[in-house]
Amino acid sequence: MADPYTHTGDDNHPTGIPVIRWEELPEGPVLVLLDQTRLPAEEVELVCTDASVLVEAIRSLAVRGAPLLGIAGAYGVALAAARGFDAQEAAAALAGARPTAVNLSVGVTRALDAHRAALGEGGDEKRAAQAALAAARRLHQEDAEASAGMARHGLALLDELLPGGGHRILTHCNTGSLVSGGEGTAFAVALAAHRAGRLRRLWVDETRPLLQGARLTAYEAARSGMAYTLLTDNAAGSLFAAGEVDAVLIGADRIAADGSVANKIGSYPLAVLARYHHVPFVVVAPVTTIDLATPDGASIEVEQRPGYEVTEAVVPQAPVVGSGGGIPVAPLGTQAYNPAFDVTPPELVTAVVTEEGAVAPVTAEAIAGLCTRSRRVTI
Amino acid sequence: MADPYTHTGDDNHPTGIPVIRWEELPEGPVLVLLDQTRLPAEEVELVCTDASVLVEAIRSLAVRGAPLLGIAGAYGVALAAARGFDAQEAAAALAGARPTAVNLSVGVTRALDAHRAALGEGGDEKRAAQAALAAARRLHQEDAEASAGMARHGLALLDELLPGGGHRILTHCNTGSLVSGGEGTAFAVALAAHRAGRLRRLWVDETRPLLQGARLTAYEAARSGMAYTLLTDNAAGSLFAAGEVDAVLIGADRIAADGSVANKIGSYPLAVLARYHHVPFVVVAPVTTIDLATPDGASIEVEQRPGYEVTEAVVPQAPVVGSGGGIPVAPLGTQAYNPAFDVTPPELVTAVVTEEGAVAPVTAEAIAGLCTRSRRVTI
Repeated sequence: MADPYTHTGDDNHPTGIPVIRWEELPEGPVLVLLDQTRLPAEEVELVCTDASVLVEAIRSLAVRGAPLLGIAGAYGVALAAARGFDAQEAAAALAGARPTAVNLSVGVTRALDAHRAALGEGGDEKRAAQAALAAARRLHQEDAEASAGMARHGLALLDELLPGGGHRILTHCNTGSLVSGGEGTAFAVALAAHRAGRLRRLWVDETRPLLQGARLTAYEAARSGMAYTLLTDNAAGSLFAAGEVDAVLIGADRIAADGSVANKIGSYPLAVLARYHHVPFVVVAPVTTIDLATPDGASIEVEQRPGYEVTEAVVPQAPVVGSGGGIPVAPLGTQAYNPAFDVTPPELVTAVVTEEGAVAPVTAEAIAGLCTRSRRVTI
Repeated sequence: MADPYTHTGDDNHPTGIPVIRWEELPEGPVLVLLDQTRLPAEEVELVCTDASVLVEAIRSLAVRGAPLLGIAGAYGVALAAARGFDAQEAAAALAGARPTAVNLSVGVTRALDAHRAALGEGGDEKRAAQAALAAARRLHQEDAEASAGMARHGLALLDELLPGGGHRILTHCNTGSLVSGGEGTAFAVALAAHRAGRLRRLWVDETRPLLQGARLTAYEAARSGMAYTLLTDNAAGSLFAAGEVDAVLIGADRIAADGSVANKIGSYPLAVLARYHHVPFVVVAPVTTIDLATPDGASIEVEQRPGYEVTEAVVPQAPVVGSGGGIPVAPLGTQAYNPAFDVTPPELVTAVVTEEGAVAPVTAEAIAGLCTRSRRVTI
């Protein structure tokens, strides 16, 4: 049987290029990523020959999105092992590449545990590397299945919350097939609504500073034939005020035990606006995003990213001028506050949708229940 | 006595270049503008030889900001008259260049009325042109005085609202000396707090899509020696959540009779966040911004700007690729929702500060009272 993760061209990804694939080359295995920093202008693949290249790709957001980071992390451990490097060292470097996304460390741990178990059972390094790769592939497959589950449960929830159909859904950042082994999280739900003929419009927040909405979500929406409109993040308020938003659907990078949701910066203001305008605010994420070891929102470490992402415009075709590789848009020396995420407290979240089902209201008990339902979550 | 509006180098503007000046050249009078689309990278002057060039400068935001638009509009009528064009036609074109800012049409009307009055009193075209110019200069001078008044009243209000000092103020868009005959509106209040030693930090929203915060407010803050930090508009939520914002200070493009405030897109979500976090939301604007002919927020016409401002990155040093003159950041063909303004209802506005004093709570009676106090407002 053909390996489902090494082929190209016939998968569900709108580019036709898989976002991540393992390839066995004569000179050794490599992990090939679709470089998401180059979209939508160019479809360029990035070949990782070792884990350190992958760490850099994770940091630069060439590969991104909570579920995909977990898959990438697992393949990264497998890659290090297959190339004869220390799997544990590689795992530590990968897990630390971005601090907020819990999926990354979950994925890394999955592969590392499989590697250790194989060694513990008397296997040699080659066998352990194979075990790590098998674990990564299982995670990849599970994530595709989880996407389908989230889409199903999310669509059912939308039908319940908005029985009239004709949904006008606002989304933030990018949560589609570019972040996932399948069709994604929040975007997968909007896509299911589109396929069911119940999506009137997808409002796409551009998502500063890195414009994942403008670059990636608009790209996926266009490829999927959805009616979509792009807006600056700060224009969402007037859409709410005009009654043009029926629901907000976002993903999550980490969900704490109390139901607090860390997600892309700009999610929290949408939650406050949604509450003020009595609009449902729905978080869609796989159960692996739930981190019961993090008790509440205050315990979530929020990654602070470099100021140049805000003070410089990074456009691939433009000449490099500023220290961050872009063109300065603010006076030189300007300091920027640039957190990657914000935290939305559970009382502002209408529902959390996972592949195991949706919960509303969002309470510690409901979150714990989702984890119990899932055989996959590592607690 | 020297004409205060034709000199350079010794005014209060941080660039040393006046944002607007009237100049008498041998070939005729011109209106010279500091091209604000080029800041902070370049300080370039734009010379308007007739009103149509000024209309284009207003549309392209080379000259912008509610009070300055009024001054520019008045000078524009004077320029048309001095150059022998039909003052009324020019006035109509100028007033229609941007629909939301009431100051623009107020300024245009001031100069046109002076022009008509001079003709009515039997003056010739030359005399009427001089009357229009004198009216523009009076408006310019009044605006500088209004700035000083707003700064005084605004600082007093801050001291009342936040008696402890050490203010951390969040602002949006650009409201300083670049928009005014003086030191501006909301920025002038922050500057007064800075000079009084009571400003701990100015949080500067970058203000998408045209980045007036990053380009212009950061520039003015840096030149003024203020402690400031730039942020993406969508990062303000997490600042509020962290208790890092003591007050929001913004300007206004139009204030309706009921106290509804039209201001740069992104103002309304800040008002909702401020309310949710019990933080004062203060609007600073000259009395000319009040439009008693507009009864309420729903009656305010909101300008829709071209989608390419959102779908393309416009950076001066980069090659032109997209139809809007910038580099596409979204897939080609992407539609964008790009209103220039949003409307904040009076119940979310803690206070309105004008040169005539501050009012709180913001009611139709209080707004009418401000107009009565002012001899300048045209009702």
